Order: sequence, then structure tokens, then C-alpha cells
Amino acid sequence: MANTEGSKLWGGRFVGDTDPIMERFNASIAYDQRMWDADIRGSKAYVKALENAKLVSTEEMEQILHGMDQIAEEWSKGVFVIKPEDEDIHTANERRLKELIGAPAGKLHTGRSRNDQVVTDMRLWLRDAITTLTDTSLQLVSTMVERAAVEIDVLFPGYTHMQRAQPIRWSHWILSHAVALSRDVDRLMEIKKRVNILPLGSGAIAGTPLNIDREMLRKELGFDDISLNSMDATGQRDFVVEFLFWASLCLTHLSKMAEDLMLYSTKEFSFVTLSDAYSTGSSLMPQKKNADSLELIRSKAGRVFGRCAGFMMALKGLPSTYNKDLQEDKEAMFDCYDTALAVLQVTTGVMSTLKINQSVMEAALSPDMLATDLAYYLVRKGVPFREAHGISGKVVFAAESRNMALNQLSVEDLSVVSPLLESDVSSVWDYRSSVEQYSAPGGTAKCSVTAQVEHLRNWLIKTRTQ
Amino acid sequence: MANTEGSKLWGGRFVGDTDPIMERFNASIAYDQRMWDADIRGSKAYVKALENAKLVSTEEMEQILHGMDQIAEEWSKGVFVIKPEDEDIHTANERRLKELIGAPAGKLHTGRSRNDQVVTDMRLWLRDAITTLTDTSLQLVSTMVERAAVEIDVLFPGYTHMQRAQPIRWSHWILSHAVALSRDVDRLMEIKKRVNILPLGSGAIAGTPLNIDREMLRKELGFDDISLNSMDATGQRDFVVEFLFWASLCLTHLSKMAEDLMLYSTKEFSFVTLSDAYSTGSSLMPQKKNADSLELIRSKAGRVFGRCAGFMMALKGLPSTYNKDLQEDKEAMFDCYDTALAVLQVTTGVMSTLKINQSVMEAALSPDMLATDLAYYLVRKGVPFREAHGISGKVVFAAESRNMALNQLSVEDLSVVSPLLESDVSSVWDYRSSVEQYSAPGGTAKCSVTAQVEHLRNWLIKTRTQ
Amino acid sequence: MANTEGSKLWGGRFVGDTDPIMERFNASIAYDQRMWDADIRGSKAYVKALENAKLVSTEEMEQILHGMDQIAEEWSKGVFVIKPEDEDIHTANERRLKELIGAPAGKLHTGRSRNDQVVTDMRLWLRDAITTLTDTSLQLVSTMVERAAVEIDVLFPGYTHMQRAQPIRWSHWILSHAVALSRDVDRLMEIKKRVNILPLGSGAIAGTPLNIDREMLRKELGFDDISLNSMDATGQRDFVVEFLFWASLCLTHLSKMAEDLMLYSTKEFSFVTLSDAYSTGSSLMPQKKNADSLELIRSKAGRVFGRCAGFMMALKGLPSTYNKDLQEDKEAMFDCYDTALAVLQVTTGVMSTLKINQSVMEAALSPDMLATDLAYYLVRKGVPFREAHGISGKVVFAAESRNMALNQLSVEDLSVVSPLLESDVSSVWDYRSSVEQYSAPGGTAKCSVTAQVEHLRNWLIKTRTQ
Amino acid sequence: MANTEGSKLWGGRFVGDTDPIMERFNASIAYDQRMWDADIRGSKAYVKALENAKLVSTEEMEQILHGMDQIAEEWSKGVFVIKPEDEDIHTANERRLKELIGAPAGKLHTGRSRNDQVVTDMRLWLRDAITTLTDTSLQLVSTMVERAAVEIDVLFPGYTHMQRAQPIRWSHWILSHAVALSRDVDRLMEIKKRVNILPLGSGAIAGTPLNIDREMLRKELGFDDISLNSMDATGQRDFVVEFLFWASLCLTHLSKMAEDLMLYSTKEFSFVTLSDAYSTGSSLMPQKKNADSLELIRSKAGRVFGRCAGFMMALKGLPSTYNKDLQEDKEAMFDCYDTALAVLQVTTGVMSTLKINQSVMEAALSPDMLATDLAYYLVRKGVPFREAHGISGKVVFAAESRNMALNQLSVEDLSVVSPLLESDVSSVWDYRSSVEQYSAPGGTAKCSVTAQVEHLRNWLIKTRTQ
Repeated sequence: MANTEGSKLWGGRFVGDTDPIMERFNASIAYDQRMWDADIRGSKAYVKALENAKLVSTEEMEQILHGMDQIAEEWSKGVFVIKPEDEDIHTANERRLKELIGAPAGKLHTGRSRNDQVVTDMRLWLRDAITTLTDTSLQLVSTMVERAAVEIDVLFPGYTHMQRAQPIRWSHWILSHAVALSRDVDRLMEIKKRVNILPLGSGAIAGTPLNIDREMLRKELGFDDISLNSMDATGQRDFVVEFLFWASLCLTHLSKMAEDLMLYSTKEFSFVTLSDAYSTGSSLMPQKKNADSLELIRSKAGRVFGRCAGFMMALKGLPSTYNKDLQEDKEAMFDCYDTALAVLQVTTGVMSTLKINQSVMEAALSPDMLATDLAYYLVRKGVPFREAHGISGKVVFAAESRNMALNQLSVEDLSVVSPLLESDVSSVWDYRSSVEQYSAPGGTAKCSVTAQVEHLRNWLIKTRTQ
Repeated sequence: MANTEGSKLWGGRFVGDTDPIMERFNASIAYDQRMWDADIRGSKAYVKALENAKLVSTEEMEQILHGMDQIAEEWSKGVFVIKPEDEDIHTANERRLKELIGAPAGKLHTGRSRNDQVVTDMRLWLRDAITTLTDTSLQLVSTMVERAAVEIDVLFPGYTHMQRAQPIRWSHWILSHAVALSRDVDRLMEIKKRVNILPLGSGAIAGTPLNIDREMLRKELGFDDISLNSMDATGQRDFVVEFLFWASLCLTHLSKMAEDLMLYSTKEFSFVTLSDAYSTGSSLMPQKKNADSLELIRSKAGRVFGRCAGFMMALKGLPSTYNKDLQEDKEAMFDCYDTALAVLQVTTGVMSTLKINQSVMEAALSPDMLATDLAYYLVRKGVPFREAHGISGKVVFAAESRNMALNQLSVEDLSVVSPLLESDVSSVWDYRSSVEQYSAPGGTAKCSVTAQVEHLRNWLIKTRTQ
Repeated sequence: MANTEGSKLWGGRFVGDTDPIMERFNASIAYDQRMWDADIRGSKAYVKALENAKLVSTEEMEQILHGMDQIAEEWSKGVFVIKPEDEDIHTANERRLKELIGAPAGKLHTGRSRNDQVVTDMRLWLRDAITTLTDTSLQLVSTMVERAAVEIDVLFPGYTHMQRAQPIRWSHWILSHAVALSRDVDRLMEIKKRVNILPLGSGAIAGTPLNIDREMLRKELGFDDISLNSMDATGQRDFVVEFLFWASLCLTHLSKMAEDLMLYSTKEFSFVTLSDAYSTGSSLMPQKKNADSLELIRSKAGRVFGRCAGFMMALKGLPSTYNKDLQEDKEAMFDCYDTALAVLQVTTGVMSTLKINQSVMEAALSPDMLATDLAYYLVRKGVPFREAHGISGKVVFAAESRNMALNQLSVEDLSVVSPLLESDVSSVWDYRSSVEQYSAPGGTAKCSVTAQVEHLRNWLIKTRTQ
Repeated sequence: MANTEGSKLWGGRFVGDTDPIMERFNASIAYDQRMWDADIRGSKAYVKALENAKLVSTEEMEQILHGMDQIAEEWSKGVFVIKPEDEDIHTANERRLKELIGAPAGKLHTGRSRNDQVVTDMRLWLRDAITTLTDTSLQLVSTMVERAAVEIDVLFPGYTHMQRAQPIRWSHWILSHAVALSRDVDRLMEIKKRVNILPLGSGAIAGTPLNIDREMLRKELGFDDISLNSMDATGQRDFVVEFLFWASLCLTHLSKMAEDLMLYSTKEFSFVTLSDAYSTGSSLMPQKKNADSLELIRSKAGRVFGRCAGFMMALKGLPSTYNKDLQEDKEAMFDCYDTALAVLQVTTGVMSTLKINQSVMEAALSPDMLATDLAYYLVRKGVPFREAHGISGKVVFAAESRNMALNQLSVEDLSVVSPLLESDVSSVWDYRSSVEQYSAPGGTAKCSVTAQVEHLRNWLIKTRTQ
């Protein structure tokens, strides 16, 4: 043990050597160094509380604060040197502090445990990460809303079950995804409230016995509230889990939008053309232009949900308080953040640069998509809807049997199916007037779509200022 | 086709027969009948909107309302007869309405699609389910808080890494789980807000063209708001996913509490004794008393998360709007509700009837658990914590080497390790005064634990009245 | 306790009443009754081993065997009456046996535990289930292979990244999915080997002390081998997990095939037309014909993987031997079996009845899909492939810029890009000769596709006789 | 485009710039460089096939082979310089080849696509990885078997439901986990068969048209067989999925063993003591010795299953052939390999160095654990087991009521419960003779445990030589 004595925070009583594979298996410095700034901010606040509790002198506090600022500078300049015995960011920073300022460094950890320290670091880190993700999401929503405003007059087929259903506005489609993303942002802000709780001062399990003023720590670090119970504070990772799941649902939404766009960008649909900036080619086939960006977006929903599933499984049946199993929290959190951020950015790029092929989109509208309107024509003549639906279905069948479009059937043909189908039926076969009927809130009429645009613009303003 | 014509809502144009395996595969009536009441409430509101839009006469509305009441009575009495062609609850109820009132039944579906109908039913159903789960959760939290208040003077070992860490109050342990559950309730109420949105009037995809007053529908059905976009309204299941994940996290919390209690109820720990009401025996071993209730609680976290994972996977990469894949939503929702409800109820039973073995709990406290306090003793004498931790570790090692308890070492023995360890060190070896030191918010001192009890009591009052 | 004494297998020492919610929570009879036949077969074999060990007399054995046959008849006729205290199928059958034959029934469970009994039942049940799934899978593969043989001359676009890549045979596409399914069958047969191991005679944990001849039991029940270690035998559920995962991967394969077919059956592609038997309509839109069968197939991959994920999570971190958490095994197993079976059957139906639209498929081939062949043309003239790829890419760009097809460019146009592009380049623009080039094993030339058909036919013969 | 022309394999026709975020999002070089050796081996074999097909001259082949060897040397020495445009390992190696040997490098990719290249690389890499994992697993099983052989005379309590059940041999417990691991190895070797299939020569989708001899490639690269269908070969990742799931199940087994050992190493059980090499301490509590190694082992089951879940979700509903979504395969594969390898190594270390506390283990045996034997005593006197179980249960209750051990009840006390309990009942109260009764295959008697040891030793010999 002599060779490692003092190099581990817990080295006092250990007499055996550690297996080097176990050392690597145990260490988290490879990834938790990413929280160096949060770790330093936490320690700086903590030493102020120690000084306030007279556990360090004002001079010692100043030395520690100064030392911490030096360490921060080393990190930010990329010159901090990690040593083999630095198993985690907490150990690394404290070890470096001791090198820089000597004895007073040994007072910094008074009454603190890595159990409350690490979770403070994570909450500080995630709070900032959520701010970035919120901003990026708002940027995407804004891009989509403004695009919807500009292209509001473009019609194209709305699909259900991947089959042509009814004519809709292209902007209605854009907004259907923007609305989902706005819910994601709302959810993220709810999660942020639960992230922004101070755990520091919970010790390893029992709390802190040394007149540490937790309210002072809270203010110093900008938390909204203080954790209620020290065992829960150090042993729970709900805020991480919520975040992982948030990323999973948000990326599932984007996988859906990507799937639509992949369909629309097939040769067969040809509704949209991706910018070259978001496409790639083939190493074999010279003509290929692949929507790799969309495929990557789609796949990332799986990736992040896998992280969520993995961490949930790690938590299942775990005894309370800190267990080393919780170390799975950080890589999952970082990876979901990085992935979600990249997906949101790339999606913004795709949506900003996408070209639509309006003539192809409108040419894809076909009279059978107005069969519902034909039923409504009959409803307006007093036919019960169920019966009108049946009549309209028979008209569709008649047209299909003759390999004709619906609007090519003569009034005679139609009157065979139902005498109520008279010459004024021709008014049905207009896509623009079809769409304008759907004027109730949430519908695809121009007024309804405009109202959606306005609603989201207001929501953006309100949300940005929160 | 003649044989089934008219029996399916979409029968007009189909000429082939359906494979019976496909019929079963496609049908949802086996489980969605559970929403009969929501389906009827939705239809009753809808017919009022149709009457308001003059699409049915007042008399027809009355017939439909009356018919729907009759159907509701049949369901509630268990005498509703499902017919083979009733593929889902919507078809079944409309089919029955037609049998009861004839032609006007055919007007009920005017402007409505099963796409907006089913999601309205689900939101109505889930809204009620969430109310029940909230009440049940609050009952559990209340049971735990009151138990914590009563047993506040019981000490026992706090564990981290499943190893004895520091003496804590038993009530501190109880409250650590109650606090987690209180967050679950907070989250559930946030989800409820997003569940309680009216989708009706979104049609299949494009909205409604027939002067249906969605605001009137909203009020009639008690929704908080109206969906913003018809494509999103019919094609998203975020509210289901959020609920499935809620159940997963809540049950993961209970799996953790169950794991603790299983440990505590082993022969080796013997801290708690489960009521016979929540135990079972062995078909082979007569002496066995197994904590089956706790094992079931633990396992259900896996079950519900599996449902969540399954539905998330079904959603991944799905094109927008309604696809039949969404049919996976209901069984998952019902199963998670049933499971979560039973788990909450059984946990309440377990926590109400559990006996604690106070003398065993307190006998399990050992002087080595005060090693941190020994370090604090040195800190109070001015030793930097890092050094104090090292000295205390050496004392532990010295005691272990001699196979003695920490408090059995003589002052001479101690002074060999550090001259600062003087005779007043004896004050450290008292569990009750150890615990009382942790008096900061969230700590295990009596005042801190009492404050937690008060906080949760106030939270319960506030939450119950929301 | 008086009221329930004797009604539970483990009732001897319990003095408290059980909570009715707990009773329901604990009971498995609602679903495990499905294994009644396996349970009876297991008990019949077991009583023979007891007789052999002289633990029951020959007469008692005969009574038990006869009683078990009566119970089997009751189950098969649907007249077996489950009583409230029948918590599981084992209890139900033994309770009924006692009613039918009296005292000797009490000897049946000698040396047996429900721990080894239930896992014997499950292995017997799953063995049969696997046989059914194997047969059903082979039926599907056979359908696909024969269809591929018949339609071998149909060409259509092969897609990568959902973009047209190269001309291929339709049969090549069919076989790509058949080959994946053949691997699924191979895997299922490997799993069957591990399912078909006898656990009976392992008791609750320690084995059996009563001269029970396990080899005799093995033969009687048709198992391939005997479990090696009693703790493992009663506490592991690997065979269930393997099966759940098998279903997940198999259904993921079918989700892929379904996705292709959904694309191909959009209006925009129009390559295939689903039989009405596997399509459904819309309650609102009369013209709709939706590929519900394919959407259901796609979604079930999520469902079954959710079951697998849920059970894996239940197993994570579980202590060894039997814990009640294992009770999650059966519903997962049954649901995955039912779902996989239905999916395989419906897929067989879909693939048997699907119509292809050959002219549309072939019309979708476009000259740009031969750009790779153009590069190969240059390679054959000695141009390094990387350079040839670049030249071909420039030709594609030239054609696109002029909005022309590749084969519409004149030799002059081409020679501007590269002088090696001479008049014989016209030989490249033939889809059939393009396809015939890919004659290496696994390629899309007719000889290669025929070889694949032959390979799979032989594999079917070999596999059916195993 | 001028600035990047030639730098991408597919650069010929692209005119827009790529977004730098998209570049990073798209690139895989950060992790797929790990397959540099497999990529080079694949290319070396491929150029030989090209030479055989007369698509490169012998001299060109030699240049390419030599260049590839140089590149391999650069990688192995850690001096290979990745350039910004190297989006993946294939591009990097080919770019470097061109720098080293000039023009002939442009011929290497003839008839090959990254679609078949990448999957060849992965299969080569995974084949080696599986060999390493197999060896490591066998080392662990061997360690456990030999430990079981040595400690065969140690008895301790067997637990079910975490409650003391019956006395067993410690070696029986060890072997229960070794048997599970032996199944894992068997499964891994089955997977290896399916990994070891050559996909090269499948091109992007349609196969290879250029007289590439796939059988020659197979031999050159040591594959067992050739892929059957080019679309399947390039678009399926079953071999990866199978591996991810293998790791998940294997690590779930180890999570179970870890959970047992964590229980056994609590102060309360004190059956085992972990080596310091696999323990860590606390930064706050000087007395703590935590079994971090075991907690990490337990948690990794979640991590790897998360990877499996994530990739399965990415695959769900994907169209056939190559889609960029498949890029999720590699990080998942590498992470599961690294994690599984570390877990197996650390577990081997833990099991090699663990100390058992035999006296504590044997002292934990208590007479109530012989209640089943008491029932068997009665069975041997002709009492039906069900009745014997009830009598034994009453004896347990009588002893518990008096707070006495079972074997402290007098013959008079016992005869009150049943007159068949006579003075020879004292023979029941011997743990060693209890254990020796369980002599059927798989039981805990010395002969049975010895047979398990022998079985596994033979299995190890057989498996090592495969």
C-alpha cells in the first residue's frame, strides 16, 4: 500500500493492491472530467460555506478560491494534466489543489462526500445543458413556424397509413411536427425545475453536522430549492432518468418527421429535395444522393432510448442511497445530450435548406382523396353520414372498376349509385375549396393554419423569456 | 362480401373476404371495451355538437342520447353482447345504437373519424385513471409520513454500497422513499395537464369541416384545452408514452424500497417483519415465510418499463398521422395502470402492517459507523479533514487488527495513532448524539426529520386540494 | 387463519389473513392455467418415479394417474372449475385431484417443489410451442421461396437508403427476407435444444433426497438431457429469455419486410397490391384501403421486444434461485408466442395473396440506376474504378443539369466528359443485361437467384425432417 | 465543391457544401478506426481477387499489398494521421494508400461497395473479439470449478426468496453460476458460426459483376461460408444483434452472482470478504470498505442491454438493404465487447481472491432449515407428504411461539403435534447428513457436486479444443 498511500481519497485502511483492470473499470475520470467547471464552481461555493462555519479561515478560503481559479484556467486552456491516480474529477481537482496550495487543500472536503459532490456537479452541468437544448429546440421550432408561414399556400396529399387520405396544406404538416416539439420544450422546462435543486450538504447519507449553511450554498450556486432528504439526495438519479427519457421522446418525434421526409424525398414521391449539405453519395453508385442526415436522425431515437433503457435497468431493484451502479449515469447523460443537440441542429439545417417541389406535390392530389367530401356533400343533403360514406365508397369502387378518376364519372354514372348525386357534385372536385372547409381550430384551412402559426409565435416569445 | 357488408364501418368498397386470423389480429374489442364509458361520454358530447351545427335534429339528438344511456346501462350491468363483427368499442357501440334506435344512429359519426374518437376515449379514460393513481399514491405517502412521525426515535444503521455507513433514524429512511414518491405525484399531475386536451374535431387528419364547435365539446367533456393541430392530435401518443414512463419510474422507486425491505427482512438483518398478509410460504419447505409481496413489487418495475420500451419501439420511425401500429397503445396503458395501482396498494398494505424490531435495529449499530464522527472530532481540533480522515482510518485499522471495537481501544492505543485523540474522545461513541449532529435541512437529526414530516404533511394537504 | 387452513399449499404456520388485493397480485392461475396439460403430464411422470422409489404404492399410482386423466378431460372439455384458493395451476390440479381421489393425492408432491414443477411445465409447454412456430415459419419461407421461383423474371428497382440503387430481380428481394427467416428457424432449433432439459428432481433448491430416478423422468417426458445443478435449474429462466429475444429478432425481420411492402404499396410506388383480406378501410374516408396487416406486423416487433426488455430488467440483479420476480416469465412467454404465431400466419397470408404490378415495377427502372454499370464499362476499358466512378458521376450531373435521362445524352455529350465514352456505351442501357452481370453467388443474375431458390428448398427439406 | 473534390468517395456530382455539424454527425472514423486491421486484411484479400479476375495487374496487386502493409505498420505504431476528410476507416485507408502508391490505389475499390466492405470488417473484428471473450469466459469458469473442487466441504445456508431455505454446499452455489456461464459460452460459439460468413462480393445491393471469386475470398479470410443473398448480406446486422444480446444475458448472469456476493459480504451475512484489490473506500467515512467491483458488475448488465435495446429499436421498421441507421452498430458492438471483457476479467479476479468465512457460514445454518427433512422423516414413516408438510409447519410454529430452535423442542412437545415424532427424530438435526441425502444428479450431496465438477472439467477440455 505504501506505493499508493495518500493517492486515493479513501486510502487510510487499505492494505492490498488494486488490480489494474479493476482500476480502469472503477475510474470515471475519462468522462467525468467533462464536468470540471461544475466541480470547481461547487467547490468554490462550498469553501465559502466552510469559511462561514469557521471551518476554514478567511485566508485559507482565499487560497482555495485562488487555487480553484488556477485549476479552472488549466482546464479551459487544455493544459490540466490528469495523473494515473486521479480516479475521478473530484480527486483530480483536489489533488491539483494540494499541489498548488498545500495544506489548506486538505480542508476543502470537510463534511462533504463525493456522494453529494458528484450529484451537485451533475445538476449544475445538466442545468446548463438544458438551457442549450432549449435554445436549440426553440431555434428549430422557429425555423419551422416561419417556413410554414411562408409556404402556407402549398397543398399536397395528407397521408394516413401511408396512403393518400385528404388534401392538406404543406404548412399544416410542418406545424404538426412543430407542435410536438413545443411540447418537448415545455417538458424540458419542467424537468429543469427538478434538476435545479441543491443536494450539497447531504454528505454521504446522513446530512451535514458542521453548521454548513445550505441556504447560502443554494444562493451561491443559483439553485431554486434545497433537497429535502439526504438519503434521497445522494441516492436518486430521477433528474437524469427524466432527461434521458426526454431525449428519447424528443428524438422519437424527430424520427417521425425524418421518416416522412425520407418518403417525400424518394424518387417516387419527389415532394422535397434535400440540400446537398445534408446528403451524401455512394462509394459504388455514382448517381446516388442519399438522405443520410434523415437516416441518422431516425436512428438516434434508438440510441438515446437505449441509454435510457440501460440506466433504468441499472436502477431497477437497487438498494437505496449511493451504490456504484449509479456511475452509469454520466456517460448516458453526456451521450444523450450530445446526440440530442446534434440531431436538433442537423434537423434545423435540413428544414432550413430543404426545397419543396410544389408542382409535384399538387399534382399528387387525386380526386379519390375527395371521397370524404363527396360523403359530406350527401350529408348536407340530409343523408346520414354512415349511408353517405357507403354511397361514396360505391362511387370509388365504380371509378376504380372502370379505371377512371372519380371526377371523370358522368352524372349518369353517379346517379346509378345514388340519385342524390346531381350535377352540382362538380363543386366537390376542387382541392383548394376542400381544404378551406376545414376551418375549425386545428384544421387545415388557411385561417386555421394561420392561427397555429400565430399561436406558436406567441409561445416562442413567451418561452424565450422564461 | 355480401355476408359482411355493412358490418364494418369501412365496408363499402371491399370485395374480398378477410382472413379470420387477420380479423382477430386486427380487432381490439377484447381490450378496448374497457373504455366503453369514455366512448359513450364522447359520443354524447359529440351528438350535442352535431345538433348545435344542425347536422342532427333535436329529436334525433334525444334519441341518440337516450340510446347511448341504454347502452351504458347494458355495459354497467354486464349484459352488453359483443358480436363477431364488433372489431372495436366504437363499432360495437354504434352497431348497438343502430339496433336500438335505427336510422338516426347513422348520423352520429358525421365528421368524426375513429382516429379522433379513439384518442378522445383514451384521454377521458386516462384522466380518470390518473386521478385514481394520484389518490392511491397520496394514501401511500401519507401512510409513510405518519409512520415516520410515530417511529422517529428509532435508530438503525444507514447503508451505502450495502455496507453500514452511519447511524440514522428509521424515519429518515422512510421519508427518503416518501420524498421520491411525492415527486412521482408531482410529475403525474403535470402529465395530467397534457392528457386533458380535447382532440375531438380533428377528423381523420385534416380537421372538421362541418361547423362542429370544438370549444363546446371541450366544455362538455371537461377538457382544459383544445388540440392545436389535427394531424398531431390524431397521430401522437405522447400522453400515453409519458404515462408509461411515469409508471416505470414510480415502480423503479418502489423496487428500490422493496429491495431495502427484503434485505431488512432477511434472517441476517431481522430489522423488519412483514405481516403474514403480505407473505407466502413454500410448497416444500414448511418453515419458509417469503416476502412475495416485495418480490412482486420489485419485478413490476421491469414489467411496466417493458411496456414503455415496447411502445417506444413501435413509435420509432413511424410516419406521421394515424398508423395501425398505434393500436399497441391501449394494452400497454391498461397494463401499466393496473400494475401500478396494484403495486401502490400492496405497498401501502406492506408499509401499514410491517413490524419493526427496534432492539435488533439498534443492536446493529456498531462503533465503526462513528469513524466519520471521529474524524469530525479531529476537525473540531483544527485537523484538516483529509488528514483527520486518514487518522480515523488508521484507528479503524488498528481496531480491526486486534479484532476489537473502535470504542474498546484505550486512550493509549489511540494516542499512538494521533496525540490529538484524548480522553474526551469517549463523547464520540454515542449513537444518539451522533445522529443529532446532522441538523442541517435534510439531515437525520430529530429536528430535521420532523421538518421533513411537516413539509410532506403540508404537501399532502396542498396536493389533495388540487 | 381457520378459514383458509389447508387451502394453500403452504398454510401450516400462517396466522394472519391475506389482503385480497395481495391475493390477486400473487395469483398466477389467470394465465398459467394455459399449461394445464404440461402440468398434468409432468405429474403423471412424477408419480411413476415415486412408485419406482416406493414412495407411493402401485395402486396409489394408478389412482393418481386415473385422477389426472380425469382432470385433463375436464380441462380439455372446458369444464374444470377454478376455485378462489387455486392460486396457480399446480395448486388447482392437486386440489382437484384430492377431491377426486382423496388421501393418495397428498403423496404426489413428495420431494417436489413448485420451484422445479413450474419450470418443468414451462419447458414442456415451450417445447411444443417451438414446434408450432418452426412449422409456421417453414410454411412462410416455403411460400416465399416458391413465389420467388415463379416470379423470377420480374425486375424492379433495388433501393438503398430508400433511393433507387440498381435494377434487381423481385425474387432477389423476396429471397433476401426468406434467408433472414431461415436463420431465425436455425436459431429457434438451437434454442429448442436448451429448452428440452429436465429440471424436475431439483426440488426447491437442493435437489431431491428420495431416490427419484431423474433419468426415468427424462425418458418419460421426452427430454434430451437432465439439468446439471439444482439451484441453476430452479432459478434460471435463460430458456425463456432466449425465446423472447428470438421472437424479437424474428419480428424485427418481419417489420423490415412489412416496411418495404408498405412503401411498395403506396400510391406513389404502386408495385404491389395487398389482398382485400389483409387490408381495411376508413370509418371516415370511403376511398381508403389501408395495409393494416403490414402495420400490425411492423408494430409487433416493438411489442415482443418490450416483453423481452421487461423480463430482462426483472432478472437484472436478482439473487440466485427462485424469487417471485420470476413469475413475470409466463405472461411474457405466452404473449410472445401468440404474437409471433399470428404475425407469421398473417405474413404468410399477405405473401400468398399479394399481387405485383409488373409493368409499374419495370417502368420504375431508370437509366441513372445504371451509372454503376457505366463505371464498370470504363473499368473494363482500363480506367481505375475510383476515376471511373468520378466520370460516371459527372455524366449523371450532366444529364441532371439538362433534365435528361442518362441514355438520352449523345455520344458527343458523353465524350466531353470522357473520350473513353464511345458509341458502344449504348450496350450499358439494358436493365436485363445489367442484372445478368451479377452472377457471382448471392447476386441478382438469374442463375444466382435460382441457386438461392435451390439452396432454400434443400434447407427446407433438411429442416423439416429434423 | 472544388475545395473538397476528390476527398469524398462519392464526391463526383455534389455541388453544395456540407454543414460541419453534419460532417461530424455523419463521420464514423472516431470509432471505426478500431477496425483498421480488419479493414486492411479485407482489402488485401480483395486485391488478390481483383488480380485473379485480371482487374489489376500482378504488379499493381503487389503495390497495393505493400502499401497496405505500410499502412498497417503506421496504425500499429500509432503514427497513422487521420485527416479531416477521412469520414470512415475505409476512406482513411484508401486515401493513405493513394498517397503512398498513387494511381493503382484507385483500382482497389473496383466492384466493392462500402456496404459489403464495412460488414466484412465487422465480421472479421467480431470473430477475433469472440475468441477473446470465449477464452476469458473459460478462464472464469475454470477458476470457479477449481475453487468449487477445493471448498467442497463447506456448508452454508441455501436461500430462496432471500430467506434461508436448506443447507447446501458452498461449492454447489459456485457451480450454479459456473453452469450458467458454460451455457453462455456454448451460445457464443453458436453465434460465432453465424458471424463467420463472408459478405464481401455483395457490392452495394446487387452482388458483384466482375468475376470476383468469392470462394477464394472466403478461404483467404478464413470464413466458414459465403453469404447467400447480397441484399441480406449488406443490410442485415443479425450477427451484431445476437452478440449484443449475448453480452446482455451473460452480464445478467454475472449481475446475479454479484448480487449474491454483495449480500454475502454485508456485515450482517459476513460469509465472504472481498480482496482489497476489488474494494474501495469512502471519501467521507474512514471505516468503509465497499464492494465496488460487484456493484459495477451488476450495473453493466443494464448498460449492455441498453445498447442492445437501442440497436434493436434502430432496426425496427427499417427498410431492407443498407440505411445509414445501421451505423449505430459499431459503437454498440465495441462497447458491449469492452464491457463484457472487463466484467469477465474483474469477476475472475474477484472469484480468485475472495476469502470465505467458513465458521460464519456454518454458524448461519439453523434447525428450521431442516423442516423439510422433518417432513421427509414423516414421509418415510408413511405419512403423505402434504400432511407431513403440515405437521412440520406446526412444529415450526410451536418452536417460534416459544422462541426456541426446532431441535430444542422435547419429544413430548413434538408428540403433541404428531405421535409419529419420536425420539429418533434427533437424527434429523444434522446438517451434513441432511446435505448428503440430496444425492440425485444435480443435488447438493458431495457425490453430486463432485460429478458437477467433473462434468464441467470435461466440458472445459472439450470446449478449449474447439
